Amino acid sequence: MTFNSTLNLIQTYEAGKPIELVVREFGIDPKEIIKLASNENPLGASPKAIESIVKNATNAHLYPDDSMFALKEGLSKHYQVNPKEIIIGAGSDQIIEFCIHAKANENSKVLMAKTTFAMYEIYSKMVGATIIKAQSQFHNLEEFLELYQTHKPSIIFLCVPNNPLGECLGKKEIFDFLGKIDSETLVIIDGAYQEYAKAKDTSKAIDPKELIQSFPNAIYLGTFSKAYGLGGMRVGYGIAKEDIIQALLKVRPPFNITTPSLAAAIEALKDQEHIHQTTQNNLEQMKLYEDYANSKGISYIPSYGNFITYLFENPLNSTLIADYLLKKGMIIRNLASYGLNAIRITIGTKSQNQRFFTLFDEFLGQ
Amino acid sequence: MTFNSTLNLIQTYEAGKPIELVVREFGIDPKEIIKLASNENPLGASPKAIESIVKNATNAHLYPDDSMFALKEGLSKHYQVNPKEIIIGAGSDQIIEFCIHAKANENSKVLMAKTTFAMYEIYSKMVGATIIKAQSQFHNLEEFLELYQTHKPSIIFLCVPNNPLGECLGKKEIFDFLGKIDSETLVIIDGAYQEYAKAKDTSKAIDPKELIQSFPNAIYLGTFSKAYGLGGMRVGYGIAKEDIIQALLKVRPPFNITTPSLAAAIEALKDQEHIHQTTQNNLEQMKLYEDYANSKGISYIPSYGNFITYLFENPLNSTLIADYLLKKGMIIRNLASYGLNAIRITIGTKSQNQRFFTLFDEFLGQ
Repeated sequence: MTFNSTLNLIQTYEAGKPIELVVREFGIDPKEIIKLASNENPLGASPKAIESIVKNATNAHLYPDDSMFALKEGLSKHYQVNPKEIIIGAGSDQIIEFCIHAKANENSKVLMAKTTFAMYEIYSKMVGATIIKAQSQFHNLEEFLELYQTHKPSIIFLCVPNNPLGECLGKKEIFDFLGKIDSETLVIIDGAYQEYAKAKDTSKAIDPKELIQSFPNAIYLGTFSKAYGLGGMRVGYGIAKEDIIQALLKVRPPFNITTPSLAAAIEALKDQEHIHQTTQNNLEQMKLYEDYANSKGISYIPSYGNFITYLFENPLNSTLIADYLLKKGMIIRNLASYGLNAIRITIGTKSQNQRFFTLFDEFLGQ
Repeated sequence: MTFNSTLNLIQTYEAGKPIELVVREFGIDPKEIIKLASNENPLGASPKAIESIVKNATNAHLYPDDSMFALKEGLSKHYQVNPKEIIIGAGSDQIIEFCIHAKANENSKVLMAKTTFAMYEIYSKMVGATIIKAQSQFHNLEEFLELYQTHKPSIIFLCVPNNPLGECLGKKEIFDFLGKIDSETLVIIDGAYQEYAKAKDTSKAIDPKELIQSFPNAIYLGTFSKAYGLGGMRVGYGIAKEDIIQALLKVRPPFNITTPSLAAAIEALKDQEHIHQTTQNNLEQMKLYEDYANSKGISYIPSYGNFITYLFENPLNSTLIADYLLKKGMIIRNLASYGLNAIRITIGTKSQNQRFFTLFDEFLGQ
């Protein structure tokens, strides 16, 4: 059977290896496996969110409130925006998908950084759009502006902070850039890791309300998957002016998040103390990764997320390192598929991180 | 901002009213509200599935196994097909979306029954495809064949049994029809309510293995949302030959179901006794709805699902009836948006159904 020709261009997204796979492949006891590959919150979710999942288990047969009234109310208060300026997705991934389905097609161009979240490219290719990638290693807004002027893309992606590298544009430079973009171009500010960036440096903080009031062609994406510790529940959101939200709602499937997910996100949002603990642990433990790299003469990218990227030079090889760690029950992300001799490590708990250093020492001592 | 012109044609799907909305609008105690609007299993999920959601609440921060190995294994055993012939979706809705994104575009035609599951049309319009609707009230395969020969659609939808009407094509007539369709046309056999149909009449049972072995251009859709009682967890599946599954996997977003959903579906599938109880309750209680309609001289469509459609004639009006019931805390589905003077009632528990009959008596006695 033949399918749409756009499919020929799509490479399936390669997710971080799940613990279950390592159990199956290497026969390691699941309790021994440490996964620092998918930027999950090592402290888990807020206890209140967990409790709400348990409470809602007996509601598993009931579809969620498809208006998502209570969650939108919560986000509306948190960000001081109108509930009509909010859309909920199965992770902020799904909001990316909505934006592309609503705004892009085979005649469109989509502009993004050279090395950034892989789904921007994958979703764009699904609709046959042309990908314009900047050439700089990190987001370089001068280069973005030139490419914007040359190509007039329908959509521009800014990942703030950037995944998988960790660098982060400042608010001022983003706002300056947005001032030069016409109102027909949708600019997607992906704030999946904003809670971590803000905690490290307030000049990186993007306030969605200020963003959309200043630039009605921008959309802010947030997620419950990272600092909120609900990666397994698939809840994210977009904040934009109502005309954009109305368009995205047209391509949203009904019941796009689960009944326990909705309840968990509502409770997680209330527990800002958990976010504080999460970002503090992250800052403290990140420092240990920097110190370790420095002590071994390994380069790294200063990170504003909950992960750190180590950059290797010959003879160190990211694939050999990732494979070595995997056999020892430690899963990290090899960035070879991004064309980099690098690994991305999620900042874990103290003991998880110590285990990483021990295993890395072992690898180096081989 | 302008968006893709295909959006102009899309009407947002109208979901059954959630209990939360009725609480907000009418101030009724949530415990008093009975929802027979969304074909949820009134017996709830299998206790084993509920237990697995509770167990997985502390894994809320962990992404699910994106290969969905264990669930595919379970379905593979249940249906005697290869795991590579299975794809998992956030409800079978999402598999419908994958099929349309992989196979249809603005040059395509999609053939479906006049009154059938609304998402077939909505997803098709999202890619700009032309909708060809049969004119018969129920699925009429002679008419489908004529329309197929005239229009050469890329995709044909057969909803077996049909939602929202409840009628059901037999296996033999479907297979005869498929024998006349060329191998380039994707035929989607939506079996969301198959467990109920099978329990009532084995001649309606579609065996996915036999289906795809006989017709490599067919895909079978199943769901955990209906008989399995996991509507709120969003898990469905498609079964097709590997070339079709490979194409659909290209348009599947990663982590498209939640961590507790994956665990719950695996356990629910094992509890076939729960399916037996569910379908037996349905058959027994359906009979009461038929008897009630007969006693009041109301027409109904004999149903093979877990719902029944009452067809009204003047002066009875479905909107007035739905509004009356709603104010009394009973939510059913008004089919006015389908152009019908009819309501669809989900078959509930004995006490829920008795409450429906009491309220309907009250309405008639006004």
